[in-house]
Amino acid sequence: MDSLNSSELPEKLQYQIIKEKHSSIPQIMQNNQIDCWIVFVRETMINKDPIFDLIIGGQVVWESAFIFANTQNLFKKIAIVGNFDVAAFEVKNIWDQVIGYTEGISQPLREVIDNVNPQLIALNYSINDVIADGLTYGMFLKIKDILSHNHEKFCTAAPLIQSIKGIKSKTEIKLISEACKLTETINQNITSQLKPDLSETKIQHLFYNEIEKYNVGHASAKSSCPSIDAGPEKQIGHIGPSSNNFVKRGHTLHNDFGIKLNGYCSDLQRMWFFGSPSELPLELRHGFDTVYNAISLAAEEIKPGIAGYLIDQIAREYVVSQGYAEFPHALGHQVGTNAHDGGTILGPLWERYGNTPYGLIEKGNIFTLELHVKTRNYGYISLEEMVVVEENFVKFLVPRQTDYIYINI
Amino acid sequence: MDSLNSSELPEKLQYQIIKEKHSSIPQIMQNNQIDCWIVFVRETMINKDPIFDLIIGGQVVWESAFIFANTQNLFKKIAIVGNFDVAAFEVKNIWDQVIGYTEGISQPLREVIDNVNPQLIALNYSINDVIADGLTYGMFLKIKDILSHNHEKFCTAAPLIQSIKGIKSKTEIKLISEACKLTETINQNITSQLKPDLSETKIQHLFYNEIEKYNVGHASAKSSCPSIDAGPEKQIGHIGPSSNNFVKRGHTLHNDFGIKLNGYCSDLQRMWFFGSPSELPLELRHGFDTVYNAISLAAEEIKPGIAGYLIDQIAREYVVSQGYAEFPHALGHQVGTNAHDGGTILGPLWERYGNTPYGLIEKGNIFTLELHVKTRNYGYISLEEMVVVEENFVKFLVPRQTDYIYINI
Repeated sequence: MDSLNSSELPEKLQYQIIKEKHSSIPQIMQNNQIDCWIVFVRETMINKDPIFDLIIGGQVVWESAFIFANTQNLFKKIAIVGNFDVAAFEVKNIWDQVIGYTEGISQPLREVIDNVNPQLIALNYSINDVIADGLTYGMFLKIKDILSHNHEKFCTAAPLIQSIKGIKSKTEIKLISEACKLTETINQNITSQLKPDLSETKIQHLFYNEIEKYNVGHASAKSSCPSIDAGPEKQIGHIGPSSNNFVKRGHTLHNDFGIKLNGYCSDLQRMWFFGSPSELPLELRHGFDTVYNAISLAAEEIKPGIAGYLIDQIAREYVVSQGYAEFPHALGHQVGTNAHDGGTILGPLWERYGNTPYGLIEKGNIFTLELHVKTRNYGYISLEEMVVVEENFVKFLVPRQTDYIYINI
Repeated sequence: MDSLNSSELPEKLQYQIIKEKHSSIPQIMQNNQIDCWIVFVRETMINKDPIFDLIIGGQVVWESAFIFANTQNLFKKIAIVGNFDVAAFEVKNIWDQVIGYTEGISQPLREVIDNVNPQLIALNYSINDVIADGLTYGMFLKIKDILSHNHEKFCTAAPLIQSIKGIKSKTEIKLISEACKLTETINQNITSQLKPDLSETKIQHLFYNEIEKYNVGHASAKSSCPSIDAGPEKQIGHIGPSSNNFVKRGHTLHNDFGIKLNGYCSDLQRMWFFGSPSELPLELRHGFDTVYNAISLAAEEIKPGIAGYLIDQIAREYVVSQGYAEFPHALGHQVGTNAHDGGTILGPLWERYGNTPYGLIEKGNIFTLELHVKTRNYGYISLEEMVVVEENFVKFLVPRQTDYIYINI
């Protein structure tokens, strides 16, 4: 039996990333004028703050507080944990101070915060962003009670978390790129196995075989990862493959597929055409080019400091200008340890996206660029690429799909 | 490669358990005089309410509300989910109504609750119990805003969740018993491999081999599951094994070990003695008997309706009466999908346990009974058993340890 599970982040790499993240925290706190941030958690085996693994790591059993304080020009990191957990956090060597307690966290937590005496106390809650909303309501009531004389200083830590999570470190960009590369390798492996009359279910199982072969994880729920959509009748969405729908000559195949490799995800969509380039219907040509160009136009405008919704708008307006209905979702989301990694999105100003499309793009963000158009006779054409934001441009993590992959047998 | 991963609950069994849980919900809501309960979640791949897998299952992407309403003598279950997720919830056939939305959840949620017109609206928050505290603070603010004209009806769903999670169904009791049995099989397999002068680390790796052989998961963090404690010098706690501490003739070996099989956990502690029964020092005899008797005395008093702390007290007072220091933790916690499964505990009235020791024991609860004593010259003696609460007594899930396991080579 192969005991190597390469879907999980090895501990050594995890602590390298935690250290990279910690080194960026003082500047990010200063940019946001927040002088104290408390990550307040308990029983992380049962319910874990989404930011925990990225800046703390390991597990805690009892209530624990991880405090980042940036006061009087002194940056200090303090962990308050149950006595049983002290040794485990001391050996990690990333905390300036590890304080243990036996009966309750109230007193040590109150003392540390009194000592820091901050202007603000940022906590992990957000109406709009799941990644920044790790504090449960019960734990909020608890810390409000413990720090009752300071609770008017509470504010959201969302801007901190979005930058810490969203600005990918060197190691993270490398890991996500590797996940994208292996995803494309799997797509290529499958291409050589495709032939007309395979069912969607059968094709999904070909992908499952590859995922097993490389011993990686699924970036999202297995039943729709990859999603497999054959031909003109298939609706695109979170709908599983059908054993009664088959790829046919003259039709397309679409997948939406991501893996989890070393704890980091990919998320790409590819299109195949069953036939030769000369057999490609004009509708499919025009649809593909529209999606391709919409991604190009959006990608060209992505720069640090621009609000996400402005990028979405470019692609959305272009698609409509080409005679198609607009796509019913955001153009792009961030990708990291999750396929949907929270933070700023490149999306329209719809209720369900809250304020996330107003967020500003930052250097080091990794976004998908994805959209589809619906043709009259040949179904949907949908592509998804992944880009990392550089100083003044974006870099595609793997080469873009520039045309259908033709299966001409 | 063996693709069978028996640490995870198979989907078919999961929906069997969900159905068992659903059938108990109307009565539990009535017992607690709660006529409406909303489980309000989003992006469950990133942050999942601890009760989600037990009563809902699958995944959701957008904000979703699962409503259990028990008004006008009519029990109704309604799911409000993003459009993309509707089909996936309809096929599950456990919801009376599945409502989809595209732009935002506010309007459909408000309409459903206006229609139900409940006296109370229970939400998943709890200061004391991690299992009942799945609602994040950001999501609380969101639902408070959506149901602003009803928000004074909000109350905690903790009593519901504690009963739903804590009262194990027939299928769950079977699965947990199977996990305990396999744990004991592994303990027996290891017994035949033990000999003096093995290091703690080496012994832990023998366990790892067995865990791989049976392809099951660890009930808690791998580095201390099993914990391995050899001889008189070792502190007992969440401390990893040492490569410099060895089992010796005349000394003990202790482990704290649980596996995850089909999604359900075991949690047992066992003691070995290196030598023959006639070589056993009196101190070790008296210590073992004290721990054994403390567990017996506590087990005899466990009945539905009794508060957890009263059971803890029995064992605690007995240990002290026998001349030992009291143990610095609770006598028992519940076990289920997690090794520490939340809800009522059999514990002392200390701050860190909040109000959980005041909870009343219910039929179908599964508890550990665990404690240790420290001897003067031979270190700690610690045992842990698991029991299920019946109508008027408890049943041990696997035969108790009645004496040391003797390694006489």
